[in-house]
Amino acid sequence: MSERSDGRADDQLRPVTLTRHWLDHAAGSVLVEFGRTRVLCVASASEGVPRWRKGSGLGWVTAEYAMLPGSTNTRTDRESVRGRIGGRTHEISRLIGRSLRAVIDYQALGENTIVLDCDVLQADGGTRTAAITGAYVALADAVSHLRGAGALAGEPLIGSVAAVSVGIVDGTPRLDLHYDDDVRAETDMNVVMTGDGRFVEVQGTAEGAPFDRAELDALLALAEQGCGELTRLQSEALAR
Amino acid sequence: MSERSDGRADDQLRPVTLTRHWLDHAAGSVLVEFGRTRVLCVASASEGVPRWRKGSGLGWVTAEYAMLPGSTNTRTDRESVRGRIGGRTHEISRLIGRSLRAVIDYQALGENTIVLDCDVLQADGGTRTAAITGAYVALADAVSHLRGAGALAGEPLIGSVAAVSVGIVDGTPRLDLHYDDDVRAETDMNVVMTGDGRFVEVQGTAEGAPFDRAELDALLALAEQGCGELTRLQSEALAR
Amino acid sequence: MSERSDGRADDQLRPVTLTRHWLDHAAGSVLVEFGRTRVLCVASASEGVPRWRKGSGLGWVTAEYAMLPGSTNTRTDRESVRGRIGGRTHEISRLIGRSLRAVIDYQALGENTIVLDCDVLQADGGTRTAAITGAYVALADAVSHLRGAGALAGEPLIGSVAAVSVGIVDGTPRLDLHYDDDVRAETDMNVVMTGDGRFVEVQGTAEGAPFDRAELDALLALAEQGCGELTRLQSEALAR
Amino acid sequence: MSERSDGRADDQLRPVTLTRHWLDHAAGSVLVEFGRTRVLCVASASEGVPRWRKGSGLGWVTAEYAMLPGSTNTRTDRESVRGRIGGRTHEISRLIGRSLRAVIDYQALGENTIVLDCDVLQADGGTRTAAITGAYVALADAVSHLRGAGALAGEPLIGSVAAVSVGIVDGTPRLDLHYDDDVRAETDMNVVMTGDGRFVEVQGTAEGAPFDRAELDALLALAEQGCGELTRLQSEALAR
Amino acid sequence: MSERSDGRADDQLRPVTLTRHWLDHAAGSVLVEFGRTRVLCVASASEGVPRWRKGSGLGWVTAEYAMLPGSTNTRTDRESVRGRIGGRTHEISRLIGRSLRAVIDYQALGENTIVLDCDVLQADGGTRTAAITGAYVALADAVSHLRGAGALAGEPLIGSVAAVSVGIVDGTPRLDLHYDDDVRAETDMNVVMTGDGRFVEVQGTAEGAPFDRAELDALLALAEQGCGELTRLQSEALAR
Amino acid sequence: MSERSDGRADDQLRPVTLTRHWLDHAAGSVLVEFGRTRVLCVASASEGVPRWRKGSGLGWVTAEYAMLPGSTNTRTDRESVRGRIGGRTHEISRLIGRSLRAVIDYQALGENTIVLDCDVLQADGGTRTAAITGAYVALADAVSHLRGAGALAGEPLIGSVAAVSVGIVDGTPRLDLHYDDDVRAETDMNVVMTGDGRFVEVQGTAEGAPFDRAELDALLALAEQGCGELTRLQSEALAR
Repeated sequence: MSERSDGRADDQLRPVTLTRHWLDHAAGSVLVEFGRTRVLCVASASEGVPRWRKGSGLGWVTAEYAMLPGSTNTRTDRESVRGRIGGRTHEISRLIGRSLRAVIDYQALGENTIVLDCDVLQADGGTRTAAITGAYVALADAVSHLRGAGALAGEPLIGSVAAVSVGIVDGTPRLDLHYDDDVRAETDMNVVMTGDGRFVEVQGTAEGAPFDRAELDALLALAEQGCGELTRLQSEALAR
Repeated sequence: MSERSDGRADDQLRPVTLTRHWLDHAAGSVLVEFGRTRVLCVASASEGVPRWRKGSGLGWVTAEYAMLPGSTNTRTDRESVRGRIGGRTHEISRLIGRSLRAVIDYQALGENTIVLDCDVLQADGGTRTAAITGAYVALADAVSHLRGAGALAGEPLIGSVAAVSVGIVDGTPRLDLHYDDDVRAETDMNVVMTGDGRFVEVQGTAEGAPFDRAELDALLALAEQGCGELTRLQSEALAR
Repeated sequence: MSERSDGRADDQLRPVTLTRHWLDHAAGSVLVEFGRTRVLCVASASEGVPRWRKGSGLGWVTAEYAMLPGSTNTRTDRESVRGRIGGRTHEISRLIGRSLRAVIDYQALGENTIVLDCDVLQADGGTRTAAITGAYVALADAVSHLRGAGALAGEPLIGSVAAVSVGIVDGTPRLDLHYDDDVRAETDMNVVMTGDGRFVEVQGTAEGAPFDRAELDALLALAEQGCGELTRLQSEALAR
Repeated sequence: MSERSDGRADDQLRPVTLTRHWLDHAAGSVLVEFGRTRVLCVASASEGVPRWRKGSGLGWVTAEYAMLPGSTNTRTDRESVRGRIGGRTHEISRLIGRSLRAVIDYQALGENTIVLDCDVLQADGGTRTAAITGAYVALADAVSHLRGAGALAGEPLIGSVAAVSVGIVDGTPRLDLHYDDDVRAETDMNVVMTGDGRFVEVQGTAEGAPFDRAELDALLALAEQGCGELTRLQSEALAR
Repeated sequence: MSERSDGRADDQLRPVTLTRHWLDHAAGSVLVEFGRTRVLCVASASEGVPRWRKGSGLGWVTAEYAMLPGSTNTRTDRESVRGRIGGRTHEISRLIGRSLRAVIDYQALGENTIVLDCDVLQADGGTRTAAITGAYVALADAVSHLRGAGALAGEPLIGSVAAVSVGIVDGTPRLDLHYDDDVRAETDMNVVMTGDGRFVEVQGTAEGAPFDRAELDALLALAEQGCGELTRLQSEALAR
Repeated sequence: MSERSDGRADDQLRPVTLTRHWLDHAAGSVLVEFGRTRVLCVASASEGVPRWRKGSGLGWVTAEYAMLPGSTNTRTDRESVRGRIGGRTHEISRLIGRSLRAVIDYQALGENTIVLDCDVLQADGGTRTAAITGAYVALADAVSHLRGAGALAGEPLIGSVAAVSVGIVDGTPRLDLHYDDDVRAETDMNVVMTGDGRFVEVQGTAEGAPFDRAELDALLALAEQGCGELTRLQSEALAR
């Protein structure tokens, strides 16, 4: 059995920080750090909804994820320069949006739109799970902002949501994979959970050998523990 | 507890057919039907690999998924006309490719490329799982084609792969969701498994309320049963 | 004088089949086969017309043509992946649309739109002429569908339309070129005619040496004969 | 029977001018005018051929057609701004290229490429036929330029090519349609012919009612006469 | 100190011609020549303004610049073919638009839009300054056209605008750089001025060594002189 | 005469900070702040140069500028989502690249490439000048990084470069415009200068009334003073 390159125990999260109000003007803005992974989550709130939803009385929440070119060890080309968004970016943007919408009551939000922009400033594994975890906090701030402006029809936030990656590395289940774990993982799973311990998304992929049911159960258990800790950190940040 | 609109039991697959050699020339071509869902899976084999893999001695397998405009009840615009591929298409193409690569030994494939094109001719739910199930058969035929041409360095197919969707509809776990199930599902999960019963992909999403661990376990059990039946149907088709 | 690779006489069509209702839901869906050439023609009917035609009381008919990547001997890249539609695709889509519009009375169609999607499943020469011939039958079914729904202001179908290719191969005029003919043709001509024997489109191109007036006349005579036979096959298919 | 809005007889060309060397540097540059229709045809010659033709010893000739935004009565949007080339532009560029290649001996051209850019400065009908007629003269000048540079392997120009439109307007066949003719034409045909009276392209389209064989014959006769006159004007221009 | 390749004095403009009404139909159309540089400037006027300006009572003026592929010594690829507009094109289009808007009173223009298309037919340096100088004359003609049509709410033209390039070549400040000057210039500056001698744009760039304040002053003086002469030529052209 | 909304004197810079090594891995990474304007400048260094420069022995430096969607008061759409880069982005990216290249000796850089990514995290006016000022420091760090790796052929940094905006607001020249200044400015000028007081770029634009020579001189004087202070701050940052 091998050691993790950053010395963590297999079931240990990286140091997580959630810095609120990182920008001066946005309805919500959180710099989330999972170790060296650093994502800026900005929530923009605006009156009105997309055309296909107008007149429904329902709000809308969506998300966009992107990596800055310099966030990776080797520079990544800009998708704006290539003229098209890649499959991975599409996939993660959609995942973040679905995760946040799981804890939103559209009726209570009223015809308002909140867009969550999650831009990776530095990538060291787990950017999508950090993004979801930080975006929830920015979303909560944006909801408060709308409440303060008297724009809400009720309480749109019906729960909290956090996410963590787990995986099997060198035959051992591990929590919160950083880059060095990630490149050696045989199986990689991202789990999104609500604050009350239910699942919103489970996405497990065999990168090397397929995994059996016992391994799947072990990963789910680790994820439940990790999401629980992240939920607590989110509460603390929002209580400050 | 409600009945399914097509009269199936909750743990029952739709009638599945796998028609090989549906085209005259392709290395592998399979028309797969899961009830009314109909996907044409064509495997094209060619010498050589993409530039980033040249000289490695390793082969490559990739997939592209698309829906014909007339495959849906309401016509879908062509992505070629819109000038860009949507997130859903990207996501499914990547899923099919990863699923097939899980049972490929690149070394044995040698520097050959197999592209699997999965075009949905008629969509009635479960197009991605039908595509994976059919594409595996087309892949097996393409491998035989390469073997016949003396182009292989060994036996590249190290297992079989099949996929099925499961979900919770009206509070009940159901196998192989067709469109009428799908639109009412609270939770939707796609599971890809090898023929020997291990997991390649697990993608579960709460469309409505989040799901708890017991529900997750029930869904996984249904998926294991469904993939087992599909594996048997694949073997039979390939034995013909 | 050479023989055709499939043994046909120079003035002989390939076996032609027109299978109606190939899909379960579309207003019209026809699988047309000219020998090995196989095109799926799907007609989608919807209320309303494009913006530039609104309030005119007139309907609209348009067409889109595409080739599946695996339809050709060597796999063709997807135009959606390349991000742009090629000139040949544009040209053929426009030709099919114009051909069908020649037999439509917009006034009688009322403010309805019919889109014909012609997707080539297998290509062995003559895909555009097969597409027109099949699309007419799908269009007729879509018109019946609209009539059944009480959506028409009259009888929009004022004639029938069929198409065939002719060409000069090894100095001899030939009807309905398949791939082996096509690659050796000095002159290639696509002719679209109405059921009463008039011309909608004549598109002749010298691939090798330019052609003289006598050759042009011989080609037109062959095309008239071929379109006549196709018209008869269309009537029979619609009578079933 | 009606009169033409510009007073011409039905079988009369518009005044045609071919101004060579309209630019200072290009290998060939011709401003061609068919009445008010004004097209700048520029031939650029360069050593080398596209990648797929390298090492073959054969040359290449291609063409691109475009309309300046201000060339039409109502301003046309730029295709560069829209980010894609329309079907009509594609179709005409391909037609011009094929027409010119019909009189080129690639072997004699050697591995050189000539690109013909045909930009419409003012459009009053017949822009594609004016473009072909002018582009041939620019091509001839570019060939002379290459000959002067000692870059040729022989005489690549094996004939001349000219083009004219014909159509049925108010029931009468007319030669060289200008805009006022064009909008009222029931049938519109573009004919490309070699200087020795053979056909390179025949593209006839029924805009209104389909046309019968007698009408087709009348149109072809007019086109033969018109192309003959244009061939004479091309010779005179090149003799200057 | 070196001589200019075309024999001009350092403070001498190239021969400048402004040919109005170069096209038959456009509201304004000017062929402007600065020596061999030749730009066609066409002003299209239409009722209405872009959506974001509707109901404001204000008009809009914008410009698009492009180079024909054959305008340069070595053929330039079309931006429509590449599918995107390059940075240089964007930059120059924006510069021309801003320059013209500096002399427009939107209130007096009323809700009308004038688009200036500046297409370079032959490029020999200074295409953007020639374009601005010519576009102003086309704009003035388009304004007269609107005035004639009774479409104006006042006098929208509140001044004139002209532009010239200056630069330091071989250590010497020079006026109106042609291509041979341009490629050797250490500093290149484009200056746009109103007819009454004030600045609209000053864009100076060190291509080689940075420039000091004395050099900057010398360049500005030359530009003031050049713009003065161009203003006079514009007046004369408009008086004809 | 009005006061500035942030209380500064007309000739006073905002508080400027330059935080080096803001990321863990990049060759150079600087967070630059001009008041509330905050730009992340990341320099990525790699061996090799673009294809057109290979074998020349010369290096290459380029830059890309972008704004995060949440950096502005009202959310800005992503250019990657729109599928194309706007003119303003192109213009600024090119400006930053040119500015940095003015102080680079390509010979000494050897065949290495440095890309500067300047991403605006928060925008409050002057983002392009902050970007240039910060990018120079990141560039200097990247050069040190290459020197440390023994990859340089000499000393490529032949000077320093800084930039500031100046403008005329309410009739008064002001230094370093923030957003509130910017929206009211009649004239806006960006000036890029070397550390030894020479000009690299001067870009002045009349947003409202054109400006006269005296105003231009006043603006240049302010810019010279501002760039001098920024040069000193850059030296201090690099000395830390």
